[in-house]
Formats: sequence, C-alpha cells, structure tokens
Amino acid sequence: MVTVGVDLGGTNIKAGLVDDSGKILAKSSVPTRSVMGAETVVADMGDQVLALLRKQGVAPDEVRGVGVGSPGAIDSANGVVNYSNNLKWKDVPLAALLKKKIDKPIKVSNDANVAALGETMFGVAKGYSDTILVTLGTGVGGGVVIGGKLFEGNQSKGAELGHMVVVANGEPCTCGRKGCLEAYASATALIRETKNAMQRDTASAMWRFAGSIDKVDGRTAFECAKQGDAAATEVVNQYIFYLSEGLLNFCNIFRPQAIILGGGVCAQGDYLLNRVRELLEDRNYGFEGTPKVDLLIASLGNDAGLVGAASLILAGL
Amino acid sequence: MVTVGVDLGGTNIKAGLVDDSGKILAKSSVPTRSVMGAETVVADMGDQVLALLRKQGVAPDEVRGVGVGSPGAIDSANGVVNYSNNLKWKDVPLAALLKKKIDKPIKVSNDANVAALGETMFGVAKGYSDTILVTLGTGVGGGVVIGGKLFEGNQSKGAELGHMVVVANGEPCTCGRKGCLEAYASATALIRETKNAMQRDTASAMWRFAGSIDKVDGRTAFECAKQGDAAATEVVNQYIFYLSEGLLNFCNIFRPQAIILGGGVCAQGDYLLNRVRELLEDRNYGFEGTPKVDLLIASLGNDAGLVGAASLILAGL
Repeated sequence: MVTVGVDLGGTNIKAGLVDDSGKILAKSSVPTRSVMGAETVVADMGDQVLALLRKQGVAPDEVRGVGVGSPGAIDSANGVVNYSNNLKWKDVPLAALLKKKIDKPIKVSNDANVAALGETMFGVAKGYSDTILVTLGTGVGGGVVIGGKLFEGNQSKGAELGHMVVVANGEPCTCGRKGCLEAYASATALIRETKNAMQRDTASAMWRFAGSIDKVDGRTAFECAKQGDAAATEVVNQYIFYLSEGLLNFCNIFRPQAIILGGGVCAQGDYLLNRVRELLEDRNYGFEGTPKVDLLIASLGNDAGLVGAASLILAGL
Repeated sequence: MVTVGVDLGGTNIKAGLVDDSGKILAKSSVPTRSVMGAETVVADMGDQVLALLRKQGVAPDEVRGVGVGSPGAIDSANGVVNYSNNLKWKDVPLAALLKKKIDKPIKVSNDANVAALGETMFGVAKGYSDTILVTLGTGVGGGVVIGGKLFEGNQSKGAELGHMVVVANGEPCTCGRKGCLEAYASATALIRETKNAMQRDTASAMWRFAGSIDKVDGRTAFECAKQGDAAATEVVNQYIFYLSEGLLNFCNIFRPQAIILGGGVCAQGDYLLNRVRELLEDRNYGFEGTPKVDLLIASLGNDAGLVGAASLILAGL
C-alpha cells in the first residue's frame, strides 16, 4: 500500500508516494499558482497526485489516502484552510475540493504540525511517542505529538509554540504581542541582533565575514563566534539563552520525552545542540528525579513536509 | 455506586464519598501525622476511608475506587509520590500502601491536576472537554485536561504551568529560574509587589488599609485600587498584565476551550475576571476566526480536592 503526502508551499506543491515505513518511493513538484485562486491550486494538486500515481503504476485501491501539510491556520477536523497569509487563502475547503479529484481519505494539517508527526513516526524521534517540534526559521513554528498523535488544540488552533511570550514587553512580534519566543529565537531575530551588534561594533569580524550588512544571514554570528569574535559571541550567547528559556518552558508545560529542533538555524548542528542541552540540564525543573528531555535535531530535512503529510494518514492505521 | 476522594494535605487528610454526579455524600477529616512517617499517614488514610464507608453503611461492592490528590511530584501511572516538600516524602508508593487496606482501584495525582479534572467534570467547566486550570495561591499551580482526560506529561511531570518564564532574567522563582509566571502571578508575588509599592509611597491608602506592612495580604492592593489609590492601582495593573501574558501563552500553546482560575486571588471575582478577559480578547492570537478561550473562576472551592480526587476514578467510567 502507498500513501500520498503533499507539501503545499507558497512557491511549489510537492507530492510524494510514501510506503508504510515512511520511505519516499517517488516525488514530483509543480508551481503553486496562487494568483489563479484556491480552486485552481487544489485542482493542480489533484492532477499532480493522479499523474504521479499513474507514472508509478499505482492502482487506486493501493492508495491508503492523501495527507496535506499546508501553511496557515487549519481546521484539520474538516480539512479547511481557515487563513493563510502566504497563499492569500481564507476558509478554503481543501479536503473537500481535493476529494472531487481523488476519492480517498484526505487529511490536512499545518506544516509544522505534520513535520512534528513525521519526525516522530519516521525521523529522528522514531520510537518516541511524546515530542515537541520547534522550527527555527523565518518564524518559530511548533508541533506537539502526544501519545503518538498530533495535539492541535481547539479547532486545531493551538500548538502556536512561537507565540509564547518569554520577555514581557520585549521585542515586537508579528502576532501583535511583544516578547514572543519567535521575536528572539527565529532566524529573523538572529539576523536582527547580528546587524545590531555589527552596528555597535564596527571592528567586528562579522563585517568581513558577511561582506556587507545586507548579506548578513543566520550563519554570520555563529561562524564568527566560532572564530572568537566578541560581538558575535555575545549575539550567539543571547540567542541560545532565549531559545533555551523557551525550550525549558516547554519542558515544564509538556514534559515531553524529546524536543526536536528544526529549521535553518539547526544547520549549526552539535555546536548549537550541545550548548542548549547544557542549559536545559542545568535548569531542569524540580527534584532530581524529574525526567530529562532529550534534545534532537530534525532528520527528514526537505522531505519532512512530504513524509509528515503522509504520516497524517499513517498515524491512523 | 460511590467513589472515594481523598485530599491529602500537609495539615489534614480529607476524605469524601462522592456519587457519580460529583456530589459529596459525606466527608471527614483527620490530621496528617507527617512526623510519624509515610506508612503511618497512609495507614491513617486507609482507616479514615474505611470508617467513613462503615459510618455511611456503604458495602465494599458499592465502592468504585479511591482517588487521591497529593501535593508534590507524582508518578500517577504507579501511584507513587516521588517527592513532596510539604509532606517530606520521597518515592512513597501511596497506591500500593493504601491497597493493603482497601482492595479497590486506586489512582493518585497531583492536587492541581485533580482540581482541573474535578472542575471540568463537575464544576464550573462542566460540558467542556479541553481546559486549563491555573491556581493563583502561594504558588501558581496548573492542571491540563485534554479530551476529558488529564494530560500530565512524561512520568506525569508536566503541566507545571507556573514554571513558564514570562520575564527572562526577571524575579527569582522558587524553582531556581528567573521570571516564572509564579514569580509574578502568585499571591506571594502580589504581596511582594504590594509591600514594595507601599515602601515607595508612604502616603498610599494601603498603609491604612493593612494596618502595618506585616499584615499585607492578597486583598490589600485590590481593595485600595477599587478606592482609587494610585500606588495600589499600579500594583494591580501590573499583576493583571503579567497574569494575562501567561494566560495568553497558554491560549496559544493549548488553545483550550476554557481557562479556569483558582486559588485565593480569585476571591476578587468579576473585578479580576473582567479585566483579564479584556486583555485576552484584545490580544487573541491570529486571524479573526481564532476561537476565543472562555475565562472562568473555579466553583468547587474547598471541595475541589475531594471531588477532583474522586474524578480520577470517575473519568475512567
């Protein structure tokens, strides 16, 4: 049997055929024609999936179902995309529209949520049943797996882990509040603080590394900190401090078996992981027997969306 | 059928017989003889329950089981109190010890957790399935109900909602971190800030209201703010701000149907509730369709422990 995973992005729609062990058997990508409207995008998605199945010689009765990971706020019980700034969608009945093309079980969830489920079922957290995924990218996304299933909150509008204030009255966040984890632990925040530090210290090695302030990215401060630059070290220390405060909050709130970090900043690998882990262990809550939370880096990479989307169907087996 | 609820406290053990609708049919209280050691305390508990059943003429086959709410860190799967500073207990197999006296299903959980379950099954949040309880007392306790069942995290060491940092590097917390919600929204924090404000403003009406600084309690600032005292108003505004920041975090993380407030500070009733509700609605996350979270005040009062403990058994029916 085969399960279809669809990773709906603002630029491309990726589709993949996934076996029951989470392995991708084949995949394809088509542009997301957002300007044509939601019905066209979903029709494209359906055609793409049907073409992929045909090309691979998969008969309809060999398909378990279709899982879709979408950006934005989703009503996963009904397969509706309530709102996506990225796609410019409002209350699009994605599952119902797709079902017109493919009469199979269809499940839709938020892209960070499906990544959490995918990493837990088939990625770095295989074998765990209770995990949190925190993605450190343009924003800070989150997904929560409890007992091997996605926890999404009322009308699947929970698990917005990036929008937990850790610095009351702190840096403005895109959500309208001040001091959210996203405003301190996203790559965007890291770049903001890197630029601030460079402007304070015009002799910092970060100027030479980046070339110009417009070319600063999420690696600038980390790479220069590794070379001993003082201003860069301060940026990295502050970034790791706020990130670990957020993760410690999740430890106390959820006490998961593991926290999985994803997103661009994780390219720092063990350099990031070891320092965050040290802070987590140092300030682990409560008496000595409080279970530690394992800290992992997501392993599915670019395939997290596809495998995660398929896992929406596979988790129900 | 009757269910036994036991509320184990540092001073008294309360036991109650509860019917299937959460109504207390009879109750009793005995002193907690902590100095005699855990085995004596649990033996006392068993004798107390047996005496109560006998007095009420309840036959053993009419008893569904015994639920116990205990302070401290609990392993609820095994009915073990891992650590309680209050009782001076470490790894006490409460359920196993109690079973020697009463051979019925026995469940043990943390006192804030059982209060959350009790309020959701039989109190102010009856009819809801997904709730958070936040108690504003000496500390800030928390309980999480998901799908009508307690969510407790790995080895039941999660749901420590008071130990979420909202002010990184802020006020020291008893847990060792700085800036936890508990350090801003507990009655203890409220009293600390009230005293600080009085020392800054020696003309504040709070001096007259309290009599002396040693007599300040959780009501001082609230009552004087209602009379228009400026220093008191500032204390209350700050308290409500930090509390609402914490609750907004729980909205974004869990998106429960309702948040239930408990503990001494809730004696302020609608005065507190209306102001917090306003801040929650003003800064509700995301697009306009994000479901609002109802804000409620716990209704079971002193019986929350008994009814909540019994609900550990009743939730399994």
